Amino acid sequence: MTETENTRIVLASRPEGRPTPANFRLERAPMPSLGDGQVLLKTLYLSLDPYMRGRMSAAKSYAAPVEIGQVMEGGTVAEVVESRDAAFKPGDIVLSYSGWQSHAAVSAKGLRKLDPQAAPVTTALGVLGMPGFTAYAGLLTIGQPKPGETLVVAAASGPVGSAVGQIARLKGARAVGIAGGPEKCAFVRETFGFDEVIDHRDPQMADKLAAACPGGIDVYFENVGGHVWDAVFPLFNSFARIPVCGLVAQYNATGAFPGPDRLPLLMRDILSKSLTIRGFIQREFVPTQGKAFQEEMTRWVAEGAIRYKEDIVEGLENAPEALIGLLEGKNFGKLIVKV
Amino acid sequence: MTETENTRIVLASRPEGRPTPANFRLERAPMPSLGDGQVLLKTLYLSLDPYMRGRMSAAKSYAAPVEIGQVMEGGTVAEVVESRDAAFKPGDIVLSYSGWQSHAAVSAKGLRKLDPQAAPVTTALGVLGMPGFTAYAGLLTIGQPKPGETLVVAAASGPVGSAVGQIARLKGARAVGIAGGPEKCAFVRETFGFDEVIDHRDPQMADKLAAACPGGIDVYFENVGGHVWDAVFPLFNSFARIPVCGLVAQYNATGAFPGPDRLPLLMRDILSKSLTIRGFIQREFVPTQGKAFQEEMTRWVAEGAIRYKEDIVEGLENAPEALIGLLEGKNFGKLIVKV
Repeated sequence: MTETENTRIVLASRPEGRPTPANFRLERAPMPSLGDGQVLLKTLYLSLDPYMRGRMSAAKSYAAPVEIGQVMEGGTVAEVVESRDAAFKPGDIVLSYSGWQSHAAVSAKGLRKLDPQAAPVTTALGVLGMPGFTAYAGLLTIGQPKPGETLVVAAASGPVGSAVGQIARLKGARAVGIAGGPEKCAFVRETFGFDEVIDHRDPQMADKLAAACPGGIDVYFENVGGHVWDAVFPLFNSFARIPVCGLVAQYNATGAFPGPDRLPLLMRDILSKSLTIRGFIQREFVPTQGKAFQEEMTRWVAEGAIRYKEDIVEGLENAPEALIGLLEGKNFGKLIVKV
Repeated sequence: MTETENTRIVLASRPEGRPTPANFRLERAPMPSLGDGQVLLKTLYLSLDPYMRGRMSAAKSYAAPVEIGQVMEGGTVAEVVESRDAAFKPGDIVLSYSGWQSHAAVSAKGLRKLDPQAAPVTTALGVLGMPGFTAYAGLLTIGQPKPGETLVVAAASGPVGSAVGQIARLKGARAVGIAGGPEKCAFVRETFGFDEVIDHRDPQMADKLAAACPGGIDVYFENVGGHVWDAVFPLFNSFARIPVCGLVAQYNATGAFPGPDRLPLLMRDILSKSLTIRGFIQREFVPTQGKAFQEEMTRWVAEGAIRYKEDIVEGLENAPEALIGLLEGKNFGKLIVKV
């Protein structure tokens, strides 16, 4: 790669089921030229997140899909190389949404300047960025954990789950995490300080979860779906709250789901236990919670009250394999590509 | 029946699937004797409601089941025959929860005196009672209909559904009702003033519902479940709210439900459309909404802004058949037994 070309990864085809490397294509293109009010960015870090699986599908969702041949979308931390906007100058480090490419010409309006002295810039893609805000806003607005209550969250070693459990504990609740494999489980318990951790690969997972929640579950932060749901479902207390921010276990599913039909039992328990189930996308809460998040979470991270883990992959060309692995739980911490 | 005996209907056995007359037994017992602070009631009217199916089952729910041999529970309007409490005197008409029997000795504490001049006393079991409050509190607290939005409610000729649609219209929303058969549908449109009504027995129900909701559904007040859900589900708008107060279509179900499994698709739409599903039992809202309901709903009924329909069955001995019919949608309006 030379600095006179833009290296980028486009969506080559839509996946059927789990994505494969063939769904992506690495291309080289001329360096983009700048318009008024734009800046030229050189990507330093690209965030990889589960929602990207949705953008690869044509199915209707809360956001438009990436078109075939378009650059894959994604949040980035980038350096300003050239600027035609008074607010930015070369060398500035910014948070952008410039996607899977080495360079991009973008409107200065959508950028947020980062202070590398205040926190490592990669945190703007993780604990102090979209995943951290997803945890903060969904948990506090919908989940509303109270002292003495029990919260359960899966993917507890990931950027959302780890923040959810730690914030719940700051609010006085017990945090029970679910993670995959002994290494992640140990980290969730020891570094993130969860009260209990269950390995979702354990054949006794449901029994162990029940034992870890002797008083039932008051908040289940749903970010995975799949077989974890079946273990959690019987344990809901009356008035339990279930924020739904992700269903990574079913993103690759195709076709109809075989029976039995679990919907009537869910509806029965929604009624008999006065459950609240509420789906959300974090941007809904930006106007009401964004400022509080930046202040409070930055302070918590600075104080060490909230800890985080990053999983950094080198090289844009490795982004497709890294995303495929993410959808299978192979990452360990916030997955970021160093471009 | 003489005034020296209490006639009552007890739960003889628990139903498997739909209840039958053999699940009930009519008994005569000595007139109950009074303790201090109690009053002797003579039942005038007994309310029959879908929740009673739940009380006949041993399955865990939000309320304890009626035990075998116990008098069936239910709300009543009764006349005070004898009083050992200073606040009540013979001839007073009260709202009680004295169940399926001609007489009862109850604590005066649980009684509310009714003013027969203010409204027909039967309304305390319907539009101005528990069903009306279920509609009011669930719709306004969870459903939150806004001007121009579309609300859908089933059992629209019943006491909850008819109030839900009319209150939604008072709040500026469009009300689309679902009811069973041409007579009920005409009544919902003409007397209750719904904007559109669909017959759930119509084989084209789903298509007709979609046509009646060209802008999608913003609030679905769930009180039936069953096949209505499948017609409603594809029409939800983003941020739709779904208060769940009843599932009468599945109360008689036994065993597992055959596939396909509809849960993953529901979870997918909860996420992609940011849906809110919230079960509730009206009593949760009594402390916060009870007073506003009594004032506002009494005024709406007095002004004719809210209309209601009662279906009065004569004779306590006919209560079992009437409840069995209610669970099949055979009643037409608020079902009340004149004892």
